[in-house]
Amino acid sequence: MTDLELTLIGIGTGNPEHLTLQAIRAMNAQDLILIPQKGAGKDDLAGVRRSICDEVLTNEAVQIVGFDLPVRDPAIEDYRARVDHWHDAIAEAWRGAMAQHPTARRVALLVWGDPSLYDSTLRIAARLEPAPRMTVIPGITSLQGLTASHAIPLNEIGAPFLVTTGRQLRDHGWPEGVDTLVIMLDGDCAFQTLDPAGVSIWWGAYVGMAEEIIRHGPLADVTEDIIATRAAARAAHGWIMDIYLLRRN
Amino acid sequence: MTDLELTLIGIGTGNPEHLTLQAIRAMNAQDLILIPQKGAGKDDLAGVRRSICDEVLTNEAVQIVGFDLPVRDPAIEDYRARVDHWHDAIAEAWRGAMAQHPTARRVALLVWGDPSLYDSTLRIAARLEPAPRMTVIPGITSLQGLTASHAIPLNEIGAPFLVTTGRQLRDHGWPEGVDTLVIMLDGDCAFQTLDPAGVSIWWGAYVGMAEEIIRHGPLADVTEDIIATRAAARAAHGWIMDIYLLRRN
Repeated sequence: MTDLELTLIGIGTGNPEHLTLQAIRAMNAQDLILIPQKGAGKDDLAGVRRSICDEVLTNEAVQIVGFDLPVRDPAIEDYRARVDHWHDAIAEAWRGAMAQHPTARRVALLVWGDPSLYDSTLRIAARLEPAPRMTVIPGITSLQGLTASHAIPLNEIGAPFLVTTGRQLRDHGWPEGVDTLVIMLDGDCAFQTLDPAGVSIWWGAYVGMAEEIIRHGPLADVTEDIIATRAAARAAHGWIMDIYLLRRN
Repeated sequence: MTDLELTLIGIGTGNPEHLTLQAIRAMNAQDLILIPQKGAGKDDLAGVRRSICDEVLTNEAVQIVGFDLPVRDPAIEDYRARVDHWHDAIAEAWRGAMAQHPTARRVALLVWGDPSLYDSTLRIAARLEPAPRMTVIPGITSLQGLTASHAIPLNEIGAPFLVTTGRQLRDHGWPEGVDTLVIMLDGDCAFQTLDPAGVSIWWGAYVGMAEEIIRHGPLADVTEDIIATRAAARAAHGWIMDIYLLRRN
């Protein structure tokens, strides 16, 4: 594989209409689009990516190639080491998929949301040798999806906001010096570990998709509803992606 | 004006290809699109908005209506009071523009970037009475534009990042507990007030546009170049929009 041109295309949060004109043009300019596949029933994101391709590809020369997404090795105890090992395995899976199409030079991956935001694709791409020529196409993030669905500003006037993870919130509490937090990657509803006094939450799952669910209110009033709604939605769909904004008065 | 349906449409950062399919559909579903106009030579953002309309409007019934954007009153010393007064005046200018088209029910504004992010349009809309039915269409932000142009991740693995303003950075320095900052609304290159040891910067102006300029490197090495490049670009174009990411090792 020489002269590989790798394009990471942000596709937004599952609404096919989140695609930008730039993303559509980039998709149609590829030789290959690689689609990660998890085991059956794990989630339907591979299906979403394929249906997005069906809707916007007009260049019949573009080939869609699935590859099996490796799973993280639970035997590796250290979090960073486990993630590193997993990224190595994904890079190897890309190489395997590309090796079946040795003349393909322009290869793309469709990245949920935006390639910069809590996404591994850039770090996996850095494992390829020789280094490919990289292009990144920005996408609609779940932050934008969440605030659009609630029709709220992300920041207060002239004020900062912090974007962080459920793990960080659970382990370190509310950070100093900032009154607006956006929490991503939270499988455990870490908001329930906070003192809810004076805190409001704007929560959303599947933001931008037909399945979208949103809730908001004083944290003390809506915590139980969000926990129950989230559990039910996860059970019903087999997967969930959610995000929330917390604001302190 | 009754039953007003107001749609705030994120248009990305000036690249017409940042428009999403959702934004294009929403634009074509309006009776009116309001375009703010500054004095001649102030900036060419009104021109960018009009050319975006030219490119994607297929419904000839959509009317494009310019309105003169009020200026902030420098006689009001308090920052918040000055901004509040300015937002009142902009809401009044919207009312004036809409009053000329009394049958228009679906009205949109094209918001640079995304309506949630350091943008006043939602707060101005909250001044309308009776309250309109609000819809927000998410857009590509300059954060995504910046990280895409540099092909870098916004966050480190599992780590938080803070989005803040030049004024905050200048007045309060590097915040506690976070190693990645994104700085917006910085007219004074506040990064030069930091101790540059161990800090790298990824800077961009006009990100996503044909005029895009990007720089990156250790802060100590590139500070002077960025200050000079920014001043020259601002002089050449008559306006500038820039943003940068700072990461501490």
